[in-house]
Amino acid sequence: MFENSTRTELGDLGEFGLINHLAEHFVPNLPDTVCGIGDDAAVFDMGDKYGLVTSDMFLEGIHFDLTFHPIKHLGYKVVAATLSDISAMNGIPKRILINIGLSNRFSLEAVEELYLGIKMACEKYNIDLVGGDTSASPKGLFISATALGEVEKNKIVYRKGCKVNDLLVVSGDVGGAYMGLQILEREKRVFLEHPTMQPDIERHDYIVGRQLKPETRTDVVDLLDSLKIIPTSMIDVSDGIAGEIYHLGKQSNVGFDIYENKLPIDPQTVEQAVEFGLNPSVAALNGGEDFELLFTVDPKDYEKIKGNMDLTIIGHVTETPGKYRLITASGNAFDITAQGWGVIAE
Amino acid sequence: MFENSTRTELGDLGEFGLINHLAEHFVPNLPDTVCGIGDDAAVFDMGDKYGLVTSDMFLEGIHFDLTFHPIKHLGYKVVAATLSDISAMNGIPKRILINIGLSNRFSLEAVEELYLGIKMACEKYNIDLVGGDTSASPKGLFISATALGEVEKNKIVYRKGCKVNDLLVVSGDVGGAYMGLQILEREKRVFLEHPTMQPDIERHDYIVGRQLKPETRTDVVDLLDSLKIIPTSMIDVSDGIAGEIYHLGKQSNVGFDIYENKLPIDPQTVEQAVEFGLNPSVAALNGGEDFELLFTVDPKDYEKIKGNMDLTIIGHVTETPGKYRLITASGNAFDITAQGWGVIAE
Repeated sequence: MFENSTRTELGDLGEFGLINHLAEHFVPNLPDTVCGIGDDAAVFDMGDKYGLVTSDMFLEGIHFDLTFHPIKHLGYKVVAATLSDISAMNGIPKRILINIGLSNRFSLEAVEELYLGIKMACEKYNIDLVGGDTSASPKGLFISATALGEVEKNKIVYRKGCKVNDLLVVSGDVGGAYMGLQILEREKRVFLEHPTMQPDIERHDYIVGRQLKPETRTDVVDLLDSLKIIPTSMIDVSDGIAGEIYHLGKQSNVGFDIYENKLPIDPQTVEQAVEFGLNPSVAALNGGEDFELLFTVDPKDYEKIKGNMDLTIIGHVTETPGKYRLITASGNAFDITAQGWGVIAE
Repeated sequence: MFENSTRTELGDLGEFGLINHLAEHFVPNLPDTVCGIGDDAAVFDMGDKYGLVTSDMFLEGIHFDLTFHPIKHLGYKVVAATLSDISAMNGIPKRILINIGLSNRFSLEAVEELYLGIKMACEKYNIDLVGGDTSASPKGLFISATALGEVEKNKIVYRKGCKVNDLLVVSGDVGGAYMGLQILEREKRVFLEHPTMQPDIERHDYIVGRQLKPETRTDVVDLLDSLKIIPTSMIDVSDGIAGEIYHLGKQSNVGFDIYENKLPIDPQTVEQAVEFGLNPSVAALNGGEDFELLFTVDPKDYEKIKGNMDLTIIGHVTETPGKYRLITASGNAFDITAQGWGVIAE
């Protein structure tokens, strides 16, 4: 299976590299496994419908910081972020299992707050918490969540499937969660240096909320259904649009052009990006955790999409695999990479 | 939801206390959630069949010790232990998702060994690995696994359902994994004190193997099916028979009598228990991680059970809820608690 015998550092591969490396060795064998590793959720045949299942991890010190993340909001976010992968398959979330490892720093009351947030999210999205394991943890708070959902067989949407000239659409606005995180981390630094200062986050309530208590766009899945639109490909924006179009493009063997002046960015996001000396488009393209849906539709669906306040056409599919471009208002084109973009000659 | 405002230590509740405390607030709402928190796996309606889902955590320093647990065996054990909860519902395991958090102490080669063990187990049990998340971890190796399975609706078996006079049956033998762990921990201590000494584990290969690389008893589920036996209640032996009968008894509102001289204990387990100054029955009743199946059957199934080398009738269901007794060869009765047993007047 794995032949080499030297020591290779994991950092040399990165997360996607590691997953891709391992996934090669785990091709599904069962006839009722419709899709294994490699999309937002795995797909299995339930008879009339497809079942969907996806799992995510949330580690203290890696994925969240309890010095500014209220633990109740964290509980809500864990559910929303995990369900987002079900929405990304055009599916309906149904159930969740949550495993929690806790160091002895946590009291029962803190755990109850966490579960209060989990419960609020379960009620919001009409899902059942059906299981999970609890354990002592050697350090900090560790959370692993697995969501189950389902989808009509003719309505499933994968990362692959889009065609040249399909329109690229994103729900809501992007970049807010990232700028919210920048503010929270700045205020944490200020607090550590000047413990008596009050944090300056109220005027940024929208983007701070995007970071601390994001939503799954189950409403967008419902909206698409009511508009009788089945996207040709879809993914959720957990790692930033720049990273997500890479996944869509790779699996569909296409490229994308995105129009900078079409990117839906909230005024608070713009204001904060400028304050941090950042191009707002950078936040919009590379900021993660917005949990919006990014999808492609057949051009014939243009009329159905264009009137919706909550859906923005930001670009289209091109015939050049691996080529992802940002087109500025002045017509310049920049190559987009998963971590930013560079000027190209054109 | 949760009213009190003082600090309560988690240790005051214990794991089951915490799960029970939280489970009260998560009663399933969806009509197709057949069973939520509280059994070996959650049950949901897939149309023709029931779907099963269960999730487990494995934390370095809490659940395993890599100083004596080969990481490939650990990968195998994670799969086997997680699937065991599907078998405990009389189900067929189909798919697994595995989330892994890794500190930078681990090389790619170590991760590959881990996945090699996972792959061996997937092949052994004919299941697909269909997903999982990988992440950096702030400390050590963290694994969370979620198994999916299915079962014919008329064949599902819960923890609840047994009736007075039903026979209590266990597969294989018990106590071995616990005694294997005692040996491994002893040899670790010896090694730390005398690094040049060779570990003394070869003559204990069976029980050490029970600890390091246990199996899921999918074969017992198949055997029961071929014998046309549907147990009246079932659980897997992950925490020791003493703890498991507590779950069966509580959910079925019954008691149990277990006959000490019927307990199936391997000679290696007996020998090591004696060497450690332990009553072998203590290891058999309280030792965890054997992953055998413990179930009850209607007395009419006695003839079908009795000829099987791999199934042992160890007791029966009594009409006294909460009363779990060990009956010795001399006819004395002792109360069994989840953590041992004490003499009672009788």
